[in-house]
Amino acid sequence: MSDNRAIGIFDSGLGGLTVAREIKRLLPNENLVYFGDTGRVPYGTRSHDTIKKYALQDEQFLLSHDVKLIVAACGTVSSVAYDTAKVLPVPFVEVVSPSVKAAIRATKNGKIGILATSATINSGAHKKQILDVLPNATVIESSGTLLVPLVEEGWTGDNDIIALETLKRYLAPMIEQGVDTLILGCTHFPVLSGAIKNILGDKVTLINMGVSTAKVVKDVLEGSDSLNDGSTVAEYKFYASDKTAAFKQTVRALLGERKKDIEIEQVDVEKL
Amino acid sequence: MSDNRAIGIFDSGLGGLTVAREIKRLLPNENLVYFGDTGRVPYGTRSHDTIKKYALQDEQFLLSHDVKLIVAACGTVSSVAYDTAKVLPVPFVEVVSPSVKAAIRATKNGKIGILATSATINSGAHKKQILDVLPNATVIESSGTLLVPLVEEGWTGDNDIIALETLKRYLAPMIEQGVDTLILGCTHFPVLSGAIKNILGDKVTLINMGVSTAKVVKDVLEGSDSLNDGSTVAEYKFYASDKTAAFKQTVRALLGERKKDIEIEQVDVEKL
Repeated sequence: MSDNRAIGIFDSGLGGLTVAREIKRLLPNENLVYFGDTGRVPYGTRSHDTIKKYALQDEQFLLSHDVKLIVAACGTVSSVAYDTAKVLPVPFVEVVSPSVKAAIRATKNGKIGILATSATINSGAHKKQILDVLPNATVIESSGTLLVPLVEEGWTGDNDIIALETLKRYLAPMIEQGVDTLILGCTHFPVLSGAIKNILGDKVTLINMGVSTAKVVKDVLEGSDSLNDGSTVAEYKFYASDKTAAFKQTVRALLGERKKDIEIEQVDVEKL
Repeated sequence: MSDNRAIGIFDSGLGGLTVAREIKRLLPNENLVYFGDTGRVPYGTRSHDTIKKYALQDEQFLLSHDVKLIVAACGTVSSVAYDTAKVLPVPFVEVVSPSVKAAIRATKNGKIGILATSATINSGAHKKQILDVLPNATVIESSGTLLVPLVEEGWTGDNDIIALETLKRYLAPMIEQGVDTLILGCTHFPVLSGAIKNILGDKVTLINMGVSTAKVVKDVLEGSDSLNDGSTVAEYKFYASDKTAAFKQTVRALLGERKKDIEIEQVDVEKL
């Protein structure tokens, strides 16, 4: 048995491409449909009601492309709008639970940091899931509000003074408490891994939600005999709710896609 | 003759409060209705079509509150969506032309800098208007993409290392070219004036769009005998398209409003 329909992936913007990259790496036969809500990014400073409304519209858009599974490649949606998935007719994978499990496996001293958007932190989703398994864990949270725009500006060099100073401010409580594991709780953040390592050193394990989520996607598809049979070359389709000049460049950078003819179609998900 | 209806003011978010503050200061008798589109901020990285759609919705919302004049207290709207005002039944004041006139009066060496959002810079609105009057002027533009989120994060101290390093990067071309006048082309930026002065020194004149725009509002109302007669104490009403925890605090800080009972009503302008 196999299922050659595409995997649908969505994010508030371009950060979810770091999840798409890991899925592509682990499951190279799979077709992908990516929707980036660049017209309404960022989600992470909005109210829960607004985020849920947006998530439902994003999911309906992907369903209209006949996907076999939907990935919420967005820490904010995964934290505060995961219940929108209850009405979906296809399996749904979010990024919080897989990354929490990876962090629990990685930690030795039980001190886990979470760097995410303010909506994600305010939801308490990571913290609650960690404490369910490790009731004595110390969880240190930090809202990195400026990091999504920083990534979209492209100031992500390992030694960029602004990236470093901004990260130092957000990571100060983690350093003070001596975390040994840090969940990058927003899919924009893996591109800042180099700068984060420069601040935290090698002894802190960074949890990239894309890596742990891709494994869950593979498990779900294998478990339901729904992997692509690889009879055709995988196709990647990109949709965005607003034109952004940087999109193609970011697709190449974040997805590791080398093709010159990346097509990005603009869609209005509010009108579906 | 007088007209005691309110002045309507809108912005993509909270930055327009710096314009509201100057209007309140210059015209203390006037009632104000402020709409901050906090559910869709920022506008400055979006496409022109999207910004126009949003501006029209914002203007319709203010009209539904029976305002006598509408101020687009947003550099991005003033630059790329000023033609939406053609259909308005009330006078419309935007922030670009007044600030350009102030800059032209202020400059001595004809070198004028513009720090604004990328949509504003890409529109070329300030530059075109400057060159219409001063064809030999040198105009140096810089897109300060990270500054709006920086202001919303509240990292605006005169000596804040992140504010200073971010501003230094954006202002480098201005310093290199020796501008003597800098237009703060986004209504969020006046709160960064202290940090900007620390970088540029006292010899560069900063143009605050709120100050120049408030004078135009006064001129328009005087010219049409539509000032408030001052028979009642001025009322300020605030509306936002999303709840933001910081809104009340920001209203107090940016508007200089000391009342404890600031009421902010949440509205859905997409559904009007």
